[in-house]
Amino acid sequence: MSKSCVVLFSGGLDSTTTLYLAKKKGLRVYALTLDYGQLHRREIESARTIARRLGIPHHVLKISLPWKGSALLDKSKQLPKNRSVREMNAEIPVTYVPARNTIFLSFALSWAEVINASSVWIGANAVDYSGYPDCRPDYISAVEKVFRLGTKNGRQGKTISIEVPLIRKTKADIVKLALSLGVPLDETWSCYRGGKKPCGTCDSCLLREKGFEEAGVSYAKTRT
Amino acid sequence: MSKSCVVLFSGGLDSTTTLYLAKKKGLRVYALTLDYGQLHRREIESARTIARRLGIPHHVLKISLPWKGSALLDKSKQLPKNRSVREMNAEIPVTYVPARNTIFLSFALSWAEVINASSVWIGANAVDYSGYPDCRPDYISAVEKVFRLGTKNGRQGKTISIEVPLIRKTKADIVKLALSLGVPLDETWSCYRGGKKPCGTCDSCLLREKGFEEAGVSYAKTRT
Repeated sequence: MSKSCVVLFSGGLDSTTTLYLAKKKGLRVYALTLDYGQLHRREIESARTIARRLGIPHHVLKISLPWKGSALLDKSKQLPKNRSVREMNAEIPVTYVPARNTIFLSFALSWAEVINASSVWIGANAVDYSGYPDCRPDYISAVEKVFRLGTKNGRQGKTISIEVPLIRKTKADIVKLALSLGVPLDETWSCYRGGKKPCGTCDSCLLREKGFEEAGVSYAKTRT
Repeated sequence: MSKSCVVLFSGGLDSTTTLYLAKKKGLRVYALTLDYGQLHRREIESARTIARRLGIPHHVLKISLPWKGSALLDKSKQLPKNRSVREMNAEIPVTYVPARNTIFLSFALSWAEVINASSVWIGANAVDYSGYPDCRPDYISAVEKVFRLGTKNGRQGKTISIEVPLIRKTKADIVKLALSLGVPLDETWSCYRGGKKPCGTCDSCLLREKGFEEAGVSYAKTRT
């Protein structure tokens, strides 16, 4: 029987590419989406559509972060507009959600242990990104140690690794990889705003657009 | 202004004692309870009652672990009965909930960062306990590193420590400490079963009873 993995799957470009990569490797993929009160709930629809099309097990779990602390959860906070990548990398922005990836990875770990999965996959990226602390390699290694020490499987030598295949890739690399894997780019959703169409000005839209441009792919075609 | 902390607070003997200890230290205490589908939901009532009495901020967050994987979440699994402490420590039991403390600590971290708390407190114990991997000192240290690397505060040098004041204490020590702190023992709930009264046979009841006996305190008086 092939090995299993849990993929953290938001429905965006990076996590969808990560999911397709895990499938390509021959793993049995279990997809996990967290509905954490993000204003861009539109991404959850994308995740559902893609998971349904692939016919993979998919959980969408609702959690609440009533203390907010992020522009992704709080309409009264302004999203940064039209920033350069240099500006994005210079500081941790208001779109940072405190402990988000730690919470996501914890849920993924729980499911992974129950199904005896050998890995958890996350589309974290530390090149063309918004400077989030919980997307960096040293953080991922630290969580991997928690996976080993904090589980029954880990204590018994059956470790659950964290796979971050995109961590050192540029957005253009990711777009090219996505195309080679047959990722339905037009179904993925990256925009941080809750609108019907991507805003084109938030960090996430700009990084996506940059990736498509540098990869020589028309951006317009990929808008939903 | 005094420092703040988040206390993971189930409403049981250990976490209530931990909470009272944090208050005694002069910290502003924020209490966090996770409603994770535990069959012994009775403990949440205890947590609410105690938090209300103390007048402290208290969130009860509902999360779902649909993959279960634990006798605490799954009625069809038998709870161990009448085991000795040696038996409890010999293996990780069916009451282990995959990644539970990792999930709990992640939520606590998120809240702690938003309120600029300097610590997260958890009543984990590695002496008179059921052998859970996510209650041991090496695990706690690993999570502390994740706290530092995975947050904006941590990256900026404002670390959030994890305080585990009970980790090396026997259950008798904990009972004595609870009494000295004025913990309302009769309000706390430890039993794993969902009944109206503690069963007296599950690991949690037995550890509690042992603690009271060794501390020379009548157990009967503390039953709800």
